[in-house]
Amino acid sequence: MFRSHTCGDLRINDVGSKVSLCGWVHKVRDKGKIIWIDLRDKYGITQLIFEDSNTDSNTFLKARNCGREFVLKITGLVSERSAKNKNIDTGNIEIIVDEIQYLNKSELPPFIIEDETDGGEELRMKYRYLDLRRNPLQKNLKLRHQLMRETRNFLDSKNFIEIETPVLIKSTPEGARDFVVPSRMNQGEFYALPQSPQTFKQLLMISGFDKYYQLVKCFRDEDLRADRQPEFTQIDCEMSFVERDDILSNFGDLIKYLFKKVLGITINNIPVMEFSDAINFYGNDKPDLRFDMQFVDLFNDVKGSGFNVFDDAEAIIGINVPNCSEYSRKQIDELTDFVKKPQIGAKGLVYIKYNKDGTLKSSIDKFYSSDKLLDIVSKCNSNKGDLVLILAGEKNNTQNALSELRLLMGNKLSLRNPKEFKPVWVVNFPLLKWNEELKRFNAMHHPFTSPINEDISLLDKDPSSVRANAYDLVINGVEIGGGSVRIFKKELQEKMFNVLGFTKEESKKQFGFLLNAFQYGTPPHGGIAFGFDRLCALFGGKESIRDFIAFPKNTSGRDVMIDSPSKIKLDQLEELGL
Amino acid sequence: MFRSHTCGDLRINDVGSKVSLCGWVHKVRDKGKIIWIDLRDKYGITQLIFEDSNTDSNTFLKARNCGREFVLKITGLVSERSAKNKNIDTGNIEIIVDEIQYLNKSELPPFIIEDETDGGEELRMKYRYLDLRRNPLQKNLKLRHQLMRETRNFLDSKNFIEIETPVLIKSTPEGARDFVVPSRMNQGEFYALPQSPQTFKQLLMISGFDKYYQLVKCFRDEDLRADRQPEFTQIDCEMSFVERDDILSNFGDLIKYLFKKVLGITINNIPVMEFSDAINFYGNDKPDLRFDMQFVDLFNDVKGSGFNVFDDAEAIIGINVPNCSEYSRKQIDELTDFVKKPQIGAKGLVYIKYNKDGTLKSSIDKFYSSDKLLDIVSKCNSNKGDLVLILAGEKNNTQNALSELRLLMGNKLSLRNPKEFKPVWVVNFPLLKWNEELKRFNAMHHPFTSPINEDISLLDKDPSSVRANAYDLVINGVEIGGGSVRIFKKELQEKMFNVLGFTKEESKKQFGFLLNAFQYGTPPHGGIAFGFDRLCALFGGKESIRDFIAFPKNTSGRDVMIDSPSKIKLDQLEELGL
Repeated sequence: MFRSHTCGDLRINDVGSKVSLCGWVHKVRDKGKIIWIDLRDKYGITQLIFEDSNTDSNTFLKARNCGREFVLKITGLVSERSAKNKNIDTGNIEIIVDEIQYLNKSELPPFIIEDETDGGEELRMKYRYLDLRRNPLQKNLKLRHQLMRETRNFLDSKNFIEIETPVLIKSTPEGARDFVVPSRMNQGEFYALPQSPQTFKQLLMISGFDKYYQLVKCFRDEDLRADRQPEFTQIDCEMSFVERDDILSNFGDLIKYLFKKVLGITINNIPVMEFSDAINFYGNDKPDLRFDMQFVDLFNDVKGSGFNVFDDAEAIIGINVPNCSEYSRKQIDELTDFVKKPQIGAKGLVYIKYNKDGTLKSSIDKFYSSDKLLDIVSKCNSNKGDLVLILAGEKNNTQNALSELRLLMGNKLSLRNPKEFKPVWVVNFPLLKWNEELKRFNAMHHPFTSPINEDISLLDKDPSSVRANAYDLVINGVEIGGGSVRIFKKELQEKMFNVLGFTKEESKKQFGFLLNAFQYGTPPHGGIAFGFDRLCALFGGKESIRDFIAFPKNTSGRDVMIDSPSKIKLDQLEELGL
Repeated sequence: MFRSHTCGDLRINDVGSKVSLCGWVHKVRDKGKIIWIDLRDKYGITQLIFEDSNTDSNTFLKARNCGREFVLKITGLVSERSAKNKNIDTGNIEIIVDEIQYLNKSELPPFIIEDETDGGEELRMKYRYLDLRRNPLQKNLKLRHQLMRETRNFLDSKNFIEIETPVLIKSTPEGARDFVVPSRMNQGEFYALPQSPQTFKQLLMISGFDKYYQLVKCFRDEDLRADRQPEFTQIDCEMSFVERDDILSNFGDLIKYLFKKVLGITINNIPVMEFSDAINFYGNDKPDLRFDMQFVDLFNDVKGSGFNVFDDAEAIIGINVPNCSEYSRKQIDELTDFVKKPQIGAKGLVYIKYNKDGTLKSSIDKFYSSDKLLDIVSKCNSNKGDLVLILAGEKNNTQNALSELRLLMGNKLSLRNPKEFKPVWVVNFPLLKWNEELKRFNAMHHPFTSPINEDISLLDKDPSSVRANAYDLVINGVEIGGGSVRIFKKELQEKMFNVLGFTKEESKKQFGFLLNAFQYGTPPHGGIAFGFDRLCALFGGKESIRDFIAFPKNTSGRDVMIDSPSKIKLDQLEELGL
């Protein structure tokens, strides 16, 4: 038995007890005749005290020679502190140590193990095991554990069953790039790692499991952005005998439960928004609803006044920014520079200041009378003191750019509070999107998504107008989950493959098992998957998922701590026939 | 809303309610003027009734035309059955159906979806989604879910934290063969899939997480036996500041909790057995303790009587088989044939019958007097009516062969009841085993296992005699889990790599990150991993793990349902530089 208590256990009513503790040396304060050591473990910090006058000299010396992050085992007497520390749970007591043992020594760590550290990103990734000792990361992984646990609690209580689906599966050409695994026993053949357990969870519905879930690792061999990882975790779910609204209700309840249980936040209602409304009002299928600033279509209001930029535009859209009529020229120029950045892509920015005194000042004064400008700001629901910002041009670009500008203004006006949460279901996405390069349609979601019933007849005539029975859960402008009601009849699935340009042979080769399964009594079913890493980051109030994953990879897909990927031995390659 | 209830919900006090149900047609009984359909879902079976006299003719016809495994939605009135069925929960009621809808039709399934099916293994694997509809498999996966859940409940309650470790890691030459994953972004380099999260969980201890667990997929590219899978699930655990007995106590409690909670069985005590005793008394490090029949060393008792087989033997060992003195010549011959099979490898079998009348009859009457034979059976603790079986020869072979014979006799005498459970900890395994081919030592467990303290000094002088601080949990002759106290000091780990024949460079290249981590305050730690698939099979009273995995692979590592592994496209290969 190494310890009688942890470093977070002891309280004032333990005074007088003989205890043994283990932990890391967090801090040493050496005042000559008295030495204090803060001993740290996962559970807390306990103060140790060594007094020259009544400590064995060997013990005193050992205390003095302790370095940061040494691992100690001590025994001693719990006593009341004279100077209490209200910031920690053990702050009323300290341990008068009579025995100290170095369980292990430590080199000086390459960065400080504190909430705020001096280590750069690269260094901390290399010494991830030390970075993980820091409080913020310990907290993040505890939050992750709690979210996992409560997700399971909720789904178990609703009669869902967690079933593990295989990791070594089959490569499919649809979707992102697969990681593949060469087979030694079947040379020249490969397994693939799953991008999601999609077909397996559908087969489980065909098997009659009724309600399935899994917290599961998935894999995508994509060029990584800052917030993507080659391996990531999903809350993967599927239900039988359900319509869309059954799924939205069930998983809306899951999200409400998690917010209540983990953060103590009550979410009353999760609104449902048409995809087309999301685009028209926010320029984005992931609207951040923590603030308003909805798009206002000004096309019919400003055309034909001789202002070429508007007269030539496919779309002219404004937003009303509250209380910003006093923006300086410099501030307006900064916004203009922002929207003109290549990644935003607007040609310029038009503003109308609706001054506090009721006058109007705009960059298009030449073309529009004050009355006309007043009409425009009225249409934008502006109040005196507000600022209207207008972009114009090709429709998609203008929507995208104005969406970015809206989010920027939200940030500037502190309207995007990370502790406030505004979920929304976005529904009825387009089923297909045109792939200009391949001159054929791709599935917007995946090939198993059902069209909404009334649009099925359009699949032949006008595929691009067909809406999918699909839905995303968006919280604060972040896509947290997405899913769909699935196709469950063989004929429709075959038609869908056909629309996606699969030959009969190809669809049989890739998905023959699923088409075959559809013949044996497939129930109507649908499901959803949540990005669990992102959910953790959202709950933790952070943007990057990296610090909610114990051992993440960097943006080149490398684990710099273990140095992977790496070369393998020649005989390994030969055995695999590579 | 598809249904108001499931097929397992309705009871006598629902009589008179209007309900809607969905499910599969399990059975149709068509008696001309009355048709009964058993409608099945995950939750149960409900009887539907259609009477010619008071059913709409279209509905009646649809009921008549239902095939097995059609998916129906029906609405109707709950009414009391005249002939009750006590075997099912809904047996008191039936539904008088007024509306029936085919949600989907079904081809005739390739085998019967009943507890006992007529489908062969290969066919059922190909149509796994249909096999999974059968009750025994539904039950197995529910049991698996329950075991997962209760494992987490127990460990969570003990302050363990579940942390996901990466799946894309680094290939290491020690242990079984790795599956590897070519990296597209780092061409010529490979990730490996983990055989276990061993080094990561140790790093988590170094990070101060104190108590870690994970239900985690692991991977081994081995030639498969019937009860092995290339991907399998572990309950993986690690603790800091613990000694061996802390671990045995904690995880013994886990196992007791699972038996109690899931099977209602009380396990009072899990004995601890030395590895050497397991070998000496059972010929096996996985002793089945449901029955006795311990080995008796007869070496000193029978040597030098002119019987060459014994005189030349390195080991002579007997077991006492109760109540079998009346075995016929044919029965004894069968046992002899069994031990002489190549995979058992004994040269022959000696028996002594201790007849009920006190006389003795043996195959070595020529060489030993009755008194001598009496001495032998006395040493074996035989009673009148028992049979002593003796094997002799090279020591290891004799122990192995007699172990097999002991298990065979256990089976014959029905002493291996699958509903009785006898766990035992086997401890103090050898640290190393000699690899004759490579002329060096391998780690018996893995290179991170600590020697027991008093043997550390023998590492230089006599490595093969060093005992490991390692332990296995064995239940009913099956290894369910294993682990060890780990090395936690850099010097000892380096020495261990050295004993295993690693050069300094190799150990740095493979495990530099761990050796490095050991320098920054590594706590004493140890852990264990349980084979979760096997645990499920054990709890389910079955030997094969296959039917406790939703989508297993066959013994060639193939998933015959999805046809994987398979060829991938040329451009995929090119992108990977293969």
